[in-house]
Amino acid sequence: MTSLVPDPTRRDNTLAIVATLRNQGPMARVDLGTANGISSATVTAIATELLRHGLVTELPAEPHRHGGRGRPKTLIRLDPEAARVVCVKLSLNEVQVVVGDFTGQVRHAETCTLNTAGLTPEALCDLLEERILATLAPLPGEPRELGGVCLAVQGVVSPASGRLIWSPALRFRNAPLAAPLAERLGCPVLLENDANCIASMLARQPAYADTPNLAVIMLGYGIGMSVLIDGKPFLGAGGSAAEIGHSKFEPGGALCACGRRGCIEAYTSDYAIYREAHALLPLPPGDSAHPSEEQMQTLVRLAEQGDPVARQIYHKAGRALGFGIANVLALFNPDLVLITGSGVRGYAAMRPALEAAIDEALVPELVGASRLAIHPWDRDMTCLGGIGMILDATDATQLASVVQP
Amino acid sequence: MTSLVPDPTRRDNTLAIVATLRNQGPMARVDLGTANGISSATVTAIATELLRHGLVTELPAEPHRHGGRGRPKTLIRLDPEAARVVCVKLSLNEVQVVVGDFTGQVRHAETCTLNTAGLTPEALCDLLEERILATLAPLPGEPRELGGVCLAVQGVVSPASGRLIWSPALRFRNAPLAAPLAERLGCPVLLENDANCIASMLARQPAYADTPNLAVIMLGYGIGMSVLIDGKPFLGAGGSAAEIGHSKFEPGGALCACGRRGCIEAYTSDYAIYREAHALLPLPPGDSAHPSEEQMQTLVRLAEQGDPVARQIYHKAGRALGFGIANVLALFNPDLVLITGSGVRGYAAMRPALEAAIDEALVPELVGASRLAIHPWDRDMTCLGGIGMILDATDATQLASVVQP
Repeated sequence: MTSLVPDPTRRDNTLAIVATLRNQGPMARVDLGTANGISSATVTAIATELLRHGLVTELPAEPHRHGGRGRPKTLIRLDPEAARVVCVKLSLNEVQVVVGDFTGQVRHAETCTLNTAGLTPEALCDLLEERILATLAPLPGEPRELGGVCLAVQGVVSPASGRLIWSPALRFRNAPLAAPLAERLGCPVLLENDANCIASMLARQPAYADTPNLAVIMLGYGIGMSVLIDGKPFLGAGGSAAEIGHSKFEPGGALCACGRRGCIEAYTSDYAIYREAHALLPLPPGDSAHPSEEQMQTLVRLAEQGDPVARQIYHKAGRALGFGIANVLALFNPDLVLITGSGVRGYAAMRPALEAAIDEALVPELVGASRLAIHPWDRDMTCLGGIGMILDATDATQLASVVQP
Repeated sequence: MTSLVPDPTRRDNTLAIVATLRNQGPMARVDLGTANGISSATVTAIATELLRHGLVTELPAEPHRHGGRGRPKTLIRLDPEAARVVCVKLSLNEVQVVVGDFTGQVRHAETCTLNTAGLTPEALCDLLEERILATLAPLPGEPRELGGVCLAVQGVVSPASGRLIWSPALRFRNAPLAAPLAERLGCPVLLENDANCIASMLARQPAYADTPNLAVIMLGYGIGMSVLIDGKPFLGAGGSAAEIGHSKFEPGGALCACGRRGCIEAYTSDYAIYREAHALLPLPPGDSAHPSEEQMQTLVRLAEQGDPVARQIYHKAGRALGFGIANVLALFNPDLVLITGSGVRGYAAMRPALEAAIDEALVPELVGASRLAIHPWDRDMTCLGGIGMILDATDATQLASVVQP
C-alpha cells in the first residue's frame, strides 16, 4: 500500500536541517547530523534533495585550519535566493518594510511615516500592499515570487485567526488583517505581536539556548512582553497573553494609555516617564504623549547627573516594573527575564528601585533560580525576528517538493 | 536489522487506550479506535495483548438497549487489580493516605493528624513510609506490589527534581523527598503540588475538554493555582509557576503568611478573612491563624445575612482576588478560570467586588473571551487527581511487557 502522506520523520528532519543552517550558518553534513540527532546517511540523502532543488549550495572545502587530518569537510549553506520574504513593522505613525532572503538576512529596508491612527482596515491593507510592492519593485526578481509576509504589530493580535485585536497605533479594533492581505499579495501572511518577533529572534541566539522558559520584556513607548516556552511564544487562548504592560502595580493608580489605572505601563513606559517629567523639568518642547528619543535621553542624563526630580521619576518607574516582574516570576517562574527595547537607556536609573521591589514582593523561594538580565538595544530586532518567523512558517511549503518528490 | 527500541507509535497507542479506559470507563473496541484516531485492527491487536497480560477484562456483551441491530458490542475495561498506587496528601497538621486501583478509583483512605511543622525531612520520610505501609497492610495483596506513590503537598515543589522547595505545612525548606521515599518503598514516587493534582483531575472531565488553557484557582487556607496548558500543569523553570497567592494586590498591603505584604492570599485566604473578622465579630473562639470550617461558615452566613462588617471583609477579599485574576488574564489569557476549593463557600459574598475589580483593571480586549466559573467543592479532589497522575506516570512501565513482548 503506498501512502499519499509524506513520511513525517523525513519532513521533520528536513525542516530541522534547514532551521539549523539558517540559525547557525554554513555547516558540514556530519555536524548537521550531530546537531539534530540524525544519522549521516539521512543527512546526506536530505542534502542531496536540497541541492537538487536549489535550496542549498556547497561551499568549496577549506583545508584544515589547525593541521587536522583526513579529508577537509565540505560545508553546505542555504541559497539566499531560494526565497524572498517581507516583514512589515507597524507602529504608531510608522510603517517599516524589510525584505529578507532564505537565509534570514535583511536585503533591503524602507520606512515611511504617516498618521496610522486615521486608517481604516481597508486603507491599511491598501497602504501595506502598495508599500510592499513598491519596496520589492526595484529589487531583482518579480514581486510575485514573494514567499510570505510577517506583519509585526504593536499591540494585541491573534496569530491563529489573523485578527488584530487592539493596537495603540490604530483606532479600529478586532479586524481581520492577515487574510485580506494574503489575498492581495497571493502569499501567506503571518500576523504577529512585535514583542514575539523580538523574543523569537533572541531565542535563536546560542546565549539563550539553555533557557527553555524565557520572558522578554520590551521597554519603550509601551511595555511589551513575550514569554517563550521551549522556544515558542506563549499566546494564550486568544493571543493576548504576556501583557505585562497592563498587569497592575496598584489599584486606582496612574492613568494608562489603555484607559485603565495602575498598569505597569502607566509608570514605566516612555510616555509615562515623560508625562511625570514634563511639568517639572526643563525639557525640549514636544508632545508629552510621544516623546522623542532625544527627549528621553535628556531625561536619563538628568537622572544620571543626580537631578532629584528625574531620579525620583526613574525610581518610581523601576519600582512599578519590579512589582510587575515579581508577578511574572510568581506566575511564570521563568529561567530568565530579559529586559530590552529602547527603554533600557533608563535601566541603570531604575535598577536599584526595581531590585528592591522584587525583594520586597517575593520570598527567595519564589524568586527561585530565575535570573534577570539586560539585552542591549543596539538595533531594532523586530523585523529580523519577523523574517525568521515567516521563514519558519513557510518552510514546510517551500520544502514540500523536497520531502515528497 | 532488528530494533531494540519498541515501536513508538504502538507504545503511544497503547498508552492512549489505557488512558481512555481510565478516564471514560468501559468501552467497545470500535469506540476506543474512534476516540483515539486508531484503526480497528490496531485496537484489536493491542486489546488482545492487554487481555493476555491481565490488564483489561471483557464485560459480557449487553443486548442493544434501543432496539439497534447487529451483533451487540463487547466492552473492555481496565482490571482494577492490575495495579495498586497511593496518593499521600500532606497539608498543615494532616497526612491523608489514599489507596487507588488501576482504574483510578479510591479503594481505601486513612487520615492522621500530627504537628507537621516539627518534622525534619528524615522524620517526614519515616512517617510517610510507616503510614503508607500501615494503610496497605490490612488490604488484600502484598505491600511490595505497590506500583507508585504521588506525594501531593501544599506549597512549592519541583516535580522534576523531586525536591520540596517550600510548604506552609513544614518548617524545613529545599529538601529532596521523592528519591528517599522511592528508595524506602521500592517504587516510583512523584512529588506534586496539591493544586496541580486537583487541576489534572478537573482536566479529565468532559466538561473542560474544550479548554486547552485552563487556570484552576483553589481558595481555602491558602490560595493556590494550577495553569494547565494542553492538559499539562505549567510548572515553570523550577516548579514554582502559577503562584497567584503570592502575586500582588497592592505594594505594602496586608501581611501574608509568606512574610511579605500585599499578596492576594493576605486578603482572600481563610486565615486572612478570619483575621479581619476575628476582632470585629462575635465568632466561635479559636486560633485565628487556622480557622475551622465551622468558623468560616459562620462568617459567610453573617455576610449573607447582611452584617456590614462581614460584607465589607468579603468585599475586600473579592476585590483583591479580582485584581489577582485580572493579572492572570493579562499574563495567561486562559480559555477558562475555574474557581474551586473549600473557600468557594464565600464566593457569592465576594462576587460583586471581584467582577467589578476585573472590569476596573482590564479593558475588554484583554479580558477577551476568557470565562470565569465555579467548580463546587463537594469533595476533596486532591487524592483522586494524585492517583490519576501517578497512574499516568507509571503506565509506561506497567505496560512495558505489553508493548515489547
